[in-house]
Amino acid sequence: MEKEKLLMTPGPTMVPPRVLEVMRRQIIHHRTKEFETIYDELEEDLKFVFQTKNMVLMFSSSGTGAMESAIVNLFSQGDKVLAISIGAFGDRFADIASTYGLNVQKLAVNWSEAVNVSEVKKILDADVNNEIKAILVTHNETSTGVTNDIEALGKLTKDTERLLVVDAISSLGGLDLQMDNWGIDLVVTGSQKALMAPPGLAYAALSDKAWEAVGKSKLPKFYWDYKKYRKGLLKESENPPYTPAISLLIAQAEALKMMKEEGLENVYARHKKLALATQAGVKALGLELFPDEKVSSYIITAVKAPEDIDIAKVIKTMNLKYDIMITGGQKHLKGKIFRIGHCGYTDGLDLIKTFAALEYSLSEAGYKVEMGASVGAVQKALL
Amino acid sequence: MEKEKLLMTPGPTMVPPRVLEVMRRQIIHHRTKEFETIYDELEEDLKFVFQTKNMVLMFSSSGTGAMESAIVNLFSQGDKVLAISIGAFGDRFADIASTYGLNVQKLAVNWSEAVNVSEVKKILDADVNNEIKAILVTHNETSTGVTNDIEALGKLTKDTERLLVVDAISSLGGLDLQMDNWGIDLVVTGSQKALMAPPGLAYAALSDKAWEAVGKSKLPKFYWDYKKYRKGLLKESENPPYTPAISLLIAQAEALKMMKEEGLENVYARHKKLALATQAGVKALGLELFPDEKVSSYIITAVKAPEDIDIAKVIKTMNLKYDIMITGGQKHLKGKIFRIGHCGYTDGLDLIKTFAALEYSLSEAGYKVEMGASVGAVQKALL
Repeated sequence: MEKEKLLMTPGPTMVPPRVLEVMRRQIIHHRTKEFETIYDELEEDLKFVFQTKNMVLMFSSSGTGAMESAIVNLFSQGDKVLAISIGAFGDRFADIASTYGLNVQKLAVNWSEAVNVSEVKKILDADVNNEIKAILVTHNETSTGVTNDIEALGKLTKDTERLLVVDAISSLGGLDLQMDNWGIDLVVTGSQKALMAPPGLAYAALSDKAWEAVGKSKLPKFYWDYKKYRKGLLKESENPPYTPAISLLIAQAEALKMMKEEGLENVYARHKKLALATQAGVKALGLELFPDEKVSSYIITAVKAPEDIDIAKVIKTMNLKYDIMITGGQKHLKGKIFRIGHCGYTDGLDLIKTFAALEYSLSEAGYKVEMGASVGAVQKALL
Repeated sequence: MEKEKLLMTPGPTMVPPRVLEVMRRQIIHHRTKEFETIYDELEEDLKFVFQTKNMVLMFSSSGTGAMESAIVNLFSQGDKVLAISIGAFGDRFADIASTYGLNVQKLAVNWSEAVNVSEVKKILDADVNNEIKAILVTHNETSTGVTNDIEALGKLTKDTERLLVVDAISSLGGLDLQMDNWGIDLVVTGSQKALMAPPGLAYAALSDKAWEAVGKSKLPKFYWDYKKYRKGLLKESENPPYTPAISLLIAQAEALKMMKEEGLENVYARHKKLALATQAGVKALGLELFPDEKVSSYIITAVKAPEDIDIAKVIKTMNLKYDIMITGGQKHLKGKIFRIGHCGYTDGLDLIKTFAALEYSLSEAGYKVEMGASVGAVQKALL
C-alpha cells in the first residue's frame, strides 16, 4: 500500500491540511477590499515571523529570485561585497553578485563548518577604507546542515555603514532570527520551508540603512524593483504592483496564523527538540554527524554516510518502500552524506517513523542495525 | 445573500473547480519520478496551447516577470528595438526595455486602435542598416480591449534577422496564436488568464532564431536565465532549476487537460462567440464599443461609459450587490470606459447573468435601461 509521501527533506516541506484546504478557494480579485484585508493581515504576520518593524515585500518567485532581488536593489556595478559561503547556497549568493558585476570578495569556509566570526572581523578591520559595502551570508546552509551565527555577525555591522544581507530561505520561522534586535539589514526567505506554505512566494525585508542603499543602487531592475513594492505597501489600501499568486498568498496567511497560535518560541523549541532527537538517533545508529555538533542545524541534520554502504540505495528504499523522503548530499558531498529535514510542519512522531524506516532501510542495505535502538533514543530525547 | 464573486475581469480569471480540487493536494517533492511525469505532460500540453514545437520555459512569477525575462535574455545594452504600444501593457514592455538600456524606438498608437501593420512595414523598410533587432508587441491589449494582428507582423519578420517578441499574457489560450506557423520568435504568457490556472506562473517559448539571440545577449540575469531552464528541460529527467510552485504547476497541468478535452478550436470559438454576444449586448444597451469593432478583443470588451453616469458606481454595484466583477479603465481612461472580461473559464450563462446585473446596475445609476433588452440580445447571439 502506498501512502502519501512524508517529506523529511530540506524543502519543499509538508503543508498542513488546514493550509491545503484554503488553497482550493476560488480566486478572488486582488483589487478588492476582501483581498486587502487578507494582505494587510499577512503583512502583519510576516513582520511577526521576521521579528521586525520593517515592511516585508512579497514576490511571486522562488527563493533564488529573492536573493537576486537583494543584489539588484542594494548595489551598483563594481560595489565590493564580502560573500561568506559555507556551502552550495552561499556559493549561489556569491554567483548572483558576480553576475551583476559586483566586486565579490569570497570567504569560502570548509563545507561542514560555520563561518568563524573573528575571521570576518579581521577582514573587516583590514578594510580600512570601508570598501566592503556589505556582507552576504546564509543563515542556515541546507547543503551541509550548518547554521551561521548571524547575531554575532550583526554586532560587526550594526553601527557601521556596512550592510548585513542574510539569506534565511531555509531558516526563517524555524530558527530564531531577530532582524531588528540583531541589526540585520536585509533578510530574504521563501514560503516553502519553515513557513509551511507551498513553494512560489518569496519575501524580503529591509532596514532603514538598506532602504538608503536602495536609493543609491544603479543596477537595472523591473520585476524586482523594491520601490514599486514599497509604494504598494505604503498606500492606504495596500496593493502589490503585479498580480500576486493569490492562492499561495492565502495559504501563507493561514500557515502564519498557525505559527502565531503555536507561538514563535514554541515553534523554535520544537525545531530544536527535533534536531537534538535526530542527533541522538544518529548516534544510536553508530553514525556521525557531518558538521560539528555545535553548529549542526536545528532544521536539517546532515549525517556522514556509513562506509561501504550505498547511501543512494538507502534513500531510495526510504522513498519507495516506506514513503518517506530524506535526501543525499549535493555536489562533492554526493554519496558521502545524507540529510534529514525536520523543518516546518513536522512533529516527533514523524521523526520516530523516519528513524524506524531508516533502521529498516540501512539494514536492507547491509548496515548492521539493532532494531529499535535509534527509535528508542529519539523517543527518549523527545520526552 | 452574498455569493462567490464571478470574475468577469481581464484576469485573474475564475479557476474551474476541477482545477481548484488538485490545488489542495499535499506537496510532492520536485526531484522525484512522480513530479517528472507531471512536468513532462505539462510541457507537452504547453507546447500544444502555444502551437509550437519549441520547448516552453516555466517561471514562478507574474506575467511581468516573463516580459522582463524576454528583454534580459535576448538583448544587450544599446540594442535597438521597435516597441509597439497600443495601451498600458505595450507601454510596460517599452519601459522594461528602456530600464535595461535598450535603444527603444516607440511606436505609440492611439489607445482604442490596433497597430497599422503597413506603418510598421514602413519603419522596417526605412531601417536599411537593420539596426532594429526586434519588434516588441502586445497580442491583446487588456487596457483597451484591442487585439493586434500578430500573423501580419510575423510576415514582416519571418524571413529576416529581426525577432518578433509577443506579449500574449492575456491572450494565449483564448485567441488563436500560431507561434510556429506565424513565425513568432518569443511568446510570453501567464497562468491566470485564458490558461484557467491561479496566478503565479509565467511561461516563455523561443524559436531557434530567438535562441541564437540568447547566445549573444550580454545583459546580466540569474533567476530569468533561459539557458538554465533549457538545460533542465533537455535532461532525460526534466527538471526546473529552482523549486517550482508545485501546487500551481499541478493546477496548470489539470487546466490544460481541460483545454485539450474541449479542443483548442472550440476554446477559441467559445471566446469569439462570447465576445460577439457581449458586443450585441452592449449595442442593445445603446452603448458603444471603445475600440473599432474590427479590432475589438475576443477576450475582453471595452465599452464607452454612458455620459452623465458615474461608471465607478455601476462597477461597484455590480460587485457589491450582484457579486460580479467587471472593471473600469486604466490611466487616462479611468471613468471613461468599462471592461467586461470573457476569458478562460466563462460560458454563455455567465455572460447572460452579467448583462442582467449590468442592466440593474446601470438603471440604478440613472441610465435608462429597458430591462431584458441586452440580455435578450446576448441570448440570441449565443444561440
